[in-house]
Amino acid sequence: MADKKLVEAITAMDVDFAQWYTDVVKKAELVDYTSVKGCMVIKPAGYAIWELLQKQLDERFKETGVENVYLPLFIPESLLEKEKDHVEGFAPEVAWVTHGGLAPLQERLCVRPTSETLFCDFYKNEVQSYRDLPKVYNQWCNVVRWEKETRPFLRSREFLWQEGHTAHATEEDAENRTIQMLDLYADFCEQVLAIPVIKGRKTDKEKFAGANATYTIEALMHDGKALQSGTSHNFGDGFAKAFEIQYTDKENKLQYVHQTSWGVTTRLIGAIIMVHGDDSGLKLPPRIAPVQVQIIPIRQQAEGVLDGAYKLAESLSEVVVDYAEGAKSAHHSLEMQNIRVKVDDSDKTPGWKFSECEMRGIPLRIELGPKDLEAGNCVIVRRDTAEKITCPLAEVNEKVSELLVTIQKEMLERARTHRDAHTYEAKDYDEFVKAFTEKSGFVKAMWCGEQACEDKIKEELSVTSRCMPFEQETLADTCVCCGKPAKKMVYWGRAY
Amino acid sequence: MADKKLVEAITAMDVDFAQWYTDVVKKAELVDYTSVKGCMVIKPAGYAIWELLQKQLDERFKETGVENVYLPLFIPESLLEKEKDHVEGFAPEVAWVTHGGLAPLQERLCVRPTSETLFCDFYKNEVQSYRDLPKVYNQWCNVVRWEKETRPFLRSREFLWQEGHTAHATEEDAENRTIQMLDLYADFCEQVLAIPVIKGRKTDKEKFAGANATYTIEALMHDGKALQSGTSHNFGDGFAKAFEIQYTDKENKLQYVHQTSWGVTTRLIGAIIMVHGDDSGLKLPPRIAPVQVQIIPIRQQAEGVLDGAYKLAESLSEVVVDYAEGAKSAHHSLEMQNIRVKVDDSDKTPGWKFSECEMRGIPLRIELGPKDLEAGNCVIVRRDTAEKITCPLAEVNEKVSELLVTIQKEMLERARTHRDAHTYEAKDYDEFVKAFTEKSGFVKAMWCGEQACEDKIKEELSVTSRCMPFEQETLADTCVCCGKPAKKMVYWGRAY
Repeated sequence: MADKKLVEAITAMDVDFAQWYTDVVKKAELVDYTSVKGCMVIKPAGYAIWELLQKQLDERFKETGVENVYLPLFIPESLLEKEKDHVEGFAPEVAWVTHGGLAPLQERLCVRPTSETLFCDFYKNEVQSYRDLPKVYNQWCNVVRWEKETRPFLRSREFLWQEGHTAHATEEDAENRTIQMLDLYADFCEQVLAIPVIKGRKTDKEKFAGANATYTIEALMHDGKALQSGTSHNFGDGFAKAFEIQYTDKENKLQYVHQTSWGVTTRLIGAIIMVHGDDSGLKLPPRIAPVQVQIIPIRQQAEGVLDGAYKLAESLSEVVVDYAEGAKSAHHSLEMQNIRVKVDDSDKTPGWKFSECEMRGIPLRIELGPKDLEAGNCVIVRRDTAEKITCPLAEVNEKVSELLVTIQKEMLERARTHRDAHTYEAKDYDEFVKAFTEKSGFVKAMWCGEQACEDKIKEELSVTSRCMPFEQETLADTCVCCGKPAKKMVYWGRAY
Repeated sequence: MADKKLVEAITAMDVDFAQWYTDVVKKAELVDYTSVKGCMVIKPAGYAIWELLQKQLDERFKETGVENVYLPLFIPESLLEKEKDHVEGFAPEVAWVTHGGLAPLQERLCVRPTSETLFCDFYKNEVQSYRDLPKVYNQWCNVVRWEKETRPFLRSREFLWQEGHTAHATEEDAENRTIQMLDLYADFCEQVLAIPVIKGRKTDKEKFAGANATYTIEALMHDGKALQSGTSHNFGDGFAKAFEIQYTDKENKLQYVHQTSWGVTTRLIGAIIMVHGDDSGLKLPPRIAPVQVQIIPIRQQAEGVLDGAYKLAESLSEVVVDYAEGAKSAHHSLEMQNIRVKVDDSDKTPGWKFSECEMRGIPLRIELGPKDLEAGNCVIVRRDTAEKITCPLAEVNEKVSELLVTIQKEMLERARTHRDAHTYEAKDYDEFVKAFTEKSGFVKAMWCGEQACEDKIKEELSVTSRCMPFEQETLADTCVCCGKPAKKMVYWGRAY
């Protein structure tokens, strides 16, 4: 009975990408739905990915001086309202607590959709002198946004994330931290998640409620749609003025602090699924795979097979793999991981185990049976290419280690090739419309800087400006939409 | 200006223990108050303790097969109401969400005070066959209980915790897991937090709403009051029947699962403060100290001093300390930690740095000045005993390593000696009253098993039954309160 659930094929990507996604998150046992609409259960296989992501990102944060804290879940309504743009952006989508125990509250509390206002309220007391700066704090927590349409990982009413909030003495320090964190996210996505991203700045229309500037990393999913994968905001002194966060500088003058915030969410798991997955299911880059090697004993009742499998697992688990190539981190230890290996000794058939292994995206499976043992070999199968490799048992530690590094690298290259092959250019509106009707991907085009053009493009094509990339090119002199002089090159796309 | 805040002495423990506690949490910069009554900010020094606690506990969980998951923050009212005792216990103290965005909700949602009902709703779909059992899941999250009186870490409206929820095929499996987790908590408190605990079972009056049996670890604070430090509940099949969680056994018969839950919270940080602290502030056991060694340069402008301090820090940070003695864990690596060391190179005076170091509870400080460097020595000072040790620089790695192990061990011994010296026995009610009026601590006394006696004792003395310890003694034949035949020996105490 239980077997049937998985053996049913999942919907093919080309037939219905949205259904394929839903099938994968369910069949790879990443999430489950709950009785609370828009809230999900993150199951062990999904949560283990989040834990690995969290650990590796947190280590990188701490290298740059970030300290973790925890602020309250609730924001009093009066506090949320202090910064005008901010409350306008968030009020329509927050959940309100109106009763505590049996009694109504005097002031209603919103469940945090993000914590700028709480951090400001906190920094107001914490920061007195230039000696107290910078404050570079972060928290890992849950947040709630009352979305109408929800999808696991991509858009849910509650999600997990980290939100960094910093306060600096000068505008320049704040800008540097904003860009530093964007670079850190981009490097993390490429090196650890094997997801190439475009770094750039959001237009005013698309920026965060209350920010001076929002920077973003944008990734392209397999279906050609864009996913905003992380953001970093420079608030200038706007929040500081609304919350009166001032410090005395070295000349004993009162100054406002300059602030930033930056975050990534469980949405990144959605990105991993949609960048790397295929019709057999999930495909995890080794550095984020909770199990990297699954050993599947063949004819496991035969003498010595299970013992051989356990012995191999033990030996592999002691190998440290060095993924350092191309890494930018200061501490090399961030690039080192012990191999995470499991033996599937359940009473399912090997064929069943193979497809389960594929569905769950485990980078390597090793088949080991009586004949292999006799010959002193095993068979290693790559999830990403389906390549089968016969390997002497004496060399398996080295081989697996080498393969994990190769897979990590090739998955990034493959994703980059796909992204580049689905990135188009448009010089005029005809080309632009054609690109978005006949193809699916990023379209690079020039823009005059007016929101009217963004509005028109959104209305006519359901396409939004993803970012003004740091790497600007001059594709034409005029705006792709209105024909007026162009100011910026923009990446456009249909987004999740 | 900023210096003054810390130099002011804190309230002495003997003068006002509650005020001493509040002073320590503030001056050691563990928490800050917020505009949301009963909710706190956990600041970097406090959160770093929680991170270390979380990491070390989570590793121990995973060794026993625990898998982490994440369930929603919200519980629909109808779901909370499914188990009668449970809803009666929690409904008076939950926060209710009634509006999502601009619209009222059809059904109000409570912010989870604990997640039994959500896990039941989840297991109901997850568990079909005996092959799906056991489920041994845990989550690290925030919960909310609308307490009237609040104190940082000890009782707050929102707190952080882990809650394990398991489902088993048999009553015996459930009971074994309940006890296994209690033992794990007790071992963790003793070995890592240096807090000795009494293991036992709660009386029916004190057990968890909906549980068949609640087990507890009880610790004694420095002021002689008790703190419930962790609990493990066996639910039998009560929740399973209310939520219809059934599986087909090997004989193809439908059976109800047996469930457990178990948790510890940020309250443990309160326990660390109140078990180990003194009039100079916090005192952290090395295994839970975010900074274990603070190097304080003396005359740091003098040539070579800062360089010497940094060099020493680098060398110490590479030392791995083995705390294994007395440890019960299967994987020895749980007992190993790299030394966590910092140099205080700020422009404060050495005297100021010393008292800050003490306030923050850092186990060892090392003083290093030009004269020390010339003599090839440094001075190591223990936070727990104030002992000063002159140590050749060539031997400092070994010496610090040895001292950290010694401090860890001696802090546990000291706490145990204090606990034992404040544990009394009472054979009749006169002795019992005398013990709780003249002294302060645990009182061991016999009990008839009737709630009437617990009620009377609580009303007259504000004393509650802490637990029926696993290690029973026969102190008398009759109940300390009513004189009827005794059934159990009970630890009694005034509790936080």
